[in-house]
Amino acid sequence: MLVANSIEEVRKIISAQKKAGKRIGFVPTMGYLHEGHLSLVEISKKHTDFQVMSIFVNKIQFNDKKDFENYPRETERDLKLAESAGVELVFLPDDEEMYRDRLTYVDVLTLTDHLCGAFREGHFRGVFTVVSKLFNIVQPDVSVFGQKDIQQAAGIEKMVYDLNFPVRIIIAPTIREKEGLAMSSRNKHLSPEQRNRALAIHRSLQAAESMIESGEAGASVILQKMKQIIEEGKPDKVDYVSITSYDTLQPVDRIENKSVIAIAAFFGTTRLIDNMIIDKGDKGFKCIY
Amino acid sequence: MLVANSIEEVRKIISAQKKAGKRIGFVPTMGYLHEGHLSLVEISKKHTDFQVMSIFVNKIQFNDKKDFENYPRETERDLKLAESAGVELVFLPDDEEMYRDRLTYVDVLTLTDHLCGAFREGHFRGVFTVVSKLFNIVQPDVSVFGQKDIQQAAGIEKMVYDLNFPVRIIIAPTIREKEGLAMSSRNKHLSPEQRNRALAIHRSLQAAESMIESGEAGASVILQKMKQIIEEGKPDKVDYVSITSYDTLQPVDRIENKSVIAIAAFFGTTRLIDNMIIDKGDKGFKCIY
Repeated sequence: MLVANSIEEVRKIISAQKKAGKRIGFVPTMGYLHEGHLSLVEISKKHTDFQVMSIFVNKIQFNDKKDFENYPRETERDLKLAESAGVELVFLPDDEEMYRDRLTYVDVLTLTDHLCGAFREGHFRGVFTVVSKLFNIVQPDVSVFGQKDIQQAAGIEKMVYDLNFPVRIIIAPTIREKEGLAMSSRNKHLSPEQRNRALAIHRSLQAAESMIESGEAGASVILQKMKQIIEEGKPDKVDYVSITSYDTLQPVDRIENKSVIAIAAFFGTTRLIDNMIIDKGDKGFKCIY
Repeated sequence: MLVANSIEEVRKIISAQKKAGKRIGFVPTMGYLHEGHLSLVEISKKHTDFQVMSIFVNKIQFNDKKDFENYPRETERDLKLAESAGVELVFLPDDEEMYRDRLTYVDVLTLTDHLCGAFREGHFRGVFTVVSKLFNIVQPDVSVFGQKDIQQAAGIEKMVYDLNFPVRIIIAPTIREKEGLAMSSRNKHLSPEQRNRALAIHRSLQAAESMIESGEAGASVILQKMKQIIEEGKPDKVDYVSITSYDTLQPVDRIENKSVIAIAAFFGTTRLIDNMIIDKGDKGFKCIY
C-alpha cells in the first residue's frame, strides 16, 4: 500500500494508474476507521480497479476548536486497517498541505440549513469544500459515502450534480452493531448503560418502517410514535427527529416521494445520529437503514 | 469545428481527445466575441493541442435581470469567429442544461468584497460557480482568461489554487484599440465623443506607470495623479480607482509586492473597467497593461 503526504505525489500515482486504464475508487475519511469505513472500500472495489482512501481530520468542518483537537487520531492502526481492506493508496496530508491561505469555499444552499446544519454552523460548508478539493486531487471515477451521515451524503450527491464533477457517487448502507446501533467512532464514548438506552433510536426506525410499510404516510403520526419510542431510552437531549424530502432535505408533511427520516440525540454527552431512506419500490415504499 | 449543446456530448468528445494524448485548452466566454477573446485562443494554442471555447451567457452572474436579457447575443457570428481563430469545439449550452435545480455555489472570500464586488453583489459567486462547472465538464489542461477582468482572473486563479482544480490558468494581456481603450463588447455603446473622453482611463494608467518606474510607491500620490487625469475625461461617474494587493485584492498604502491598479468609470451609461498589474522585475517594478 502506498502512502502519500503531498498532493503532487497523489497526482503522479493516480495519473500513472489512469494511463494504465485503471478506474479509480475513492473513500474520503477522517480516520479512526471502523467496519463502516471498510465496508465503503468493499463497495468501491466492486466498481473500480484502484482503491484510494484519504485520512484527514478536516479542521474547517469543526465549529468548535476543542472538538477538532480532541478528535481521535490513530494513524498507525488506520493504515493497517486500510491495507487489510485492500486500499492501494492512502492520501495523508497535513493542514499546511490542504489549507495554506484558503479563501474559497463551496456550499450547497438549503440542504444545509436544516437537520444537523441548524446545529453545526459552517460544518457542511467545510465538508463540501474539502470534498471538492479531494475530488480535484484524486480525480476518482467513483466515490463511496456512508448513509449514516445522510445529510453529508445527499449534499455531496447534490454538489456533484450541480457542479458537474465527473465522479459517480455511491451511498452505502449503514453498518450496525449486532443490537442495531449505527457504527460510529463516537460509540466508544458510551457507557454500557447509555449504549443500551441508545438502542431506542434503532427501535424507533423499525417502528417507522412497519408503519410506512402498512401504508401510513402522515409525517406527524410517524414522528409522534418515533419520539415516544426514543423517549423510552431517556435520551439526555433530542436535537431532531424529522421527515424530509431526500432532494432538498426540507421537512415534508406526507411521504409522497423519496424521503429521509433522520434522528440526532444525545446519550450522556455523546451525540448520535441515525436515519432511514424511504424510496418508492414495486409495492409501496421501501425503507433502507 | 464541432458544436455541442449538451454536457454529455462535450464529455464524449474530450474523452476521445484525451485518450489520443491531446492536451485540452479552454477559453470560457459569454459570446459577442471580439479580438480580445480571440487573442486568448491564440495563447491557448501555444500550450495545448485541442481548443475548446464555451459560449454561455451566465444568468447567475447578473444581479439585474434586464442586464441579462439585454446582453448582446450573436451566435452565428461568434461561431464563425471561433472557427477562424482555430477553435475545435464550441460548447453552447442553454440555461436548462447548465442550471436545473441549482443549490450549490462556489465563492472566494475577501477577493470579492472589494472593487467590482462591492458594486455587483453575487456577481463573482456566479462567475466562480459557472467556471467550476465548466472546468468539471471540459476538464481542460490549460484555461486562458483576459487581464481586463482582473478581479475575475485573479479570483479564478485563487479558486483553482484553493480547490486544487487540475488546470493551469494563464492570464493574457489586455487587447486595446489603437488609441489605447481596452477592448470590450461594451465599447459599441460609446458615442465618438464619449469614446474620446474615455481615453483618459488609459492615460491615467500610463501616468501611473511612469511614476512607478521612477520609483514612486505611495498609493495616495499615484491615485491622486490618476484621478486628476481621469477627471480631465469628464467621466459621468467613477466607481473606483484603487491600488490593491494582487493576492487578496485588498487596498494597500504602498506598492511593495505584486499589486493591481484598477479603475471602473462610467462614460454616458457605459461602465468601463481597466487595470494594470505591477510586478517585481529585475530593476524595480514593471507594469503590465
